[in-house]
Amino acid sequence: MRNIKLTIQYDGTNYSGWQRQNNSNSIQEQIEKAINKVTSEKVNLIGSGRTDKGVHALGQVANFLTSSRIPADRFKLALNSILPEDISIIESEEVDIDFHSRYHALGKRYRYCIYNGKIRNPLYRNYAYHVPWSLNYKEMEKGIKYFIGTHDFKAFMASNSSVKSTVRTVSKFYLEHKEDLMVFTIEGNGFLYNMIRIIIGTLVDIGRERIKADKIPQILESKNRQLAGHTAPPQGLYLTRVFY
Amino acid sequence: MRNIKLTIQYDGTNYSGWQRQNNSNSIQEQIEKAINKVTSEKVNLIGSGRTDKGVHALGQVANFLTSSRIPADRFKLALNSILPEDISIIESEEVDIDFHSRYHALGKRYRYCIYNGKIRNPLYRNYAYHVPWSLNYKEMEKGIKYFIGTHDFKAFMASNSSVKSTVRTVSKFYLEHKEDLMVFTIEGNGFLYNMIRIIIGTLVDIGRERIKADKIPQILESKNRQLAGHTAPPQGLYLTRVFY
Repeated sequence: MRNIKLTIQYDGTNYSGWQRQNNSNSIQEQIEKAINKVTSEKVNLIGSGRTDKGVHALGQVANFLTSSRIPADRFKLALNSILPEDISIIESEEVDIDFHSRYHALGKRYRYCIYNGKIRNPLYRNYAYHVPWSLNYKEMEKGIKYFIGTHDFKAFMASNSSVKSTVRTVSKFYLEHKEDLMVFTIEGNGFLYNMIRIIIGTLVDIGRERIKADKIPQILESKNRQLAGHTAPPQGLYLTRVFY
Repeated sequence: MRNIKLTIQYDGTNYSGWQRQNNSNSIQEQIEKAINKVTSEKVNLIGSGRTDKGVHALGQVANFLTSSRIPADRFKLALNSILPEDISIIESEEVDIDFHSRYHALGKRYRYCIYNGKIRNPLYRNYAYHVPWSLNYKEMEKGIKYFIGTHDFKAFMASNSSVKSTVRTVSKFYLEHKEDLMVFTIEGNGFLYNMIRIIIGTLVDIGRERIKADKIPQILESKNRQLAGHTAPPQGLYLTRVFY
């Protein structure tokens, strides 16, 4: 058996999300079907983690075991010729048989895009969060700094989810302005369910001066989801890189 | 009667183009229907020009006559609340009763985006022309310069179209590299049918060294569509501004 690692880009707009589910169109299923066409094997494609409906990826990672003899870098071309245009394999390589996309991930980098124009821009509707209000950027920048470091992020996790530990480390978090887009980059050793979207929603609430930036330490300490801000929508979120 | 001028953005992906046609979903028709809902009048919306299926706009202009008393700047909000999310009115204002979006246009600015990565990027599939080959940028830059000025562009017009004069003036034409995108900006007093897409296709052929940049004056002079390059696809093209 050989272990093949794929690096994947996708436009999440027309999918139910990464994870295979009954009666829904997932990215995992599309790629598994394409691998099946190429190898005639039924494989289990292991992703580095799920992405929700509407969330995009520029560097999702997944791996699968195969007994096919196809050269590893050929999978890229073979799969792209079968996959729909909104999914693309940008790299395929053979890795150690023990490599596991999820267990071995040391960290992830995400991007979140906000379009801060007064009127909606049709070209961003599936690719950014439209925030039409004027935002206090200085307060938002102040807010960003409080998230960096190791914290219990329970207050920034979707309230219906459960996990052993809610302590995570955010190693990088910064904001760039690119023309009319606000582009956030956030990097960490792992993220709780909806954590980034709740952090971004909270920053928007800070920008609107509905929450004070210097309240973030208290919100973190409270571990109470109710005290954090709203959950920003999925279409602004991009998984850009997985670190191993 | 009042004359209302609209500035419009749209994602052309899901439309048959600007122009109303039987049994197809046009942008003009969508906006006319929305105006009808707001004013209870059947209007004829005059666009500055057509855009083809798949072509986008960041600043299309159109006007219509109405006897409605709705304040001009209110149309923007009223229409946006009805229009689908891939069409947006970014400005509505009252103009002189004689103003005509098409006849009075002095010039237009377009953008054309090429994604020059080896592997397709799913997020650009509807928004850029994917050119996977390596391109000779220097030759392309050289080619661009030959198009600037007043020329007979007959060789750069779709061969099945007819028009009184094929002489046009290109006043600005330049290329910027934005990360992995090549962004062309072209401005002129008017463009023939498919002219920009044939110019871009020819530049790609020059970048691939299939046509020499210094052949452009001869191609222009020949007035022969066969000698120019291929027609670049519509999804890379954006109407960004109409000048009056």
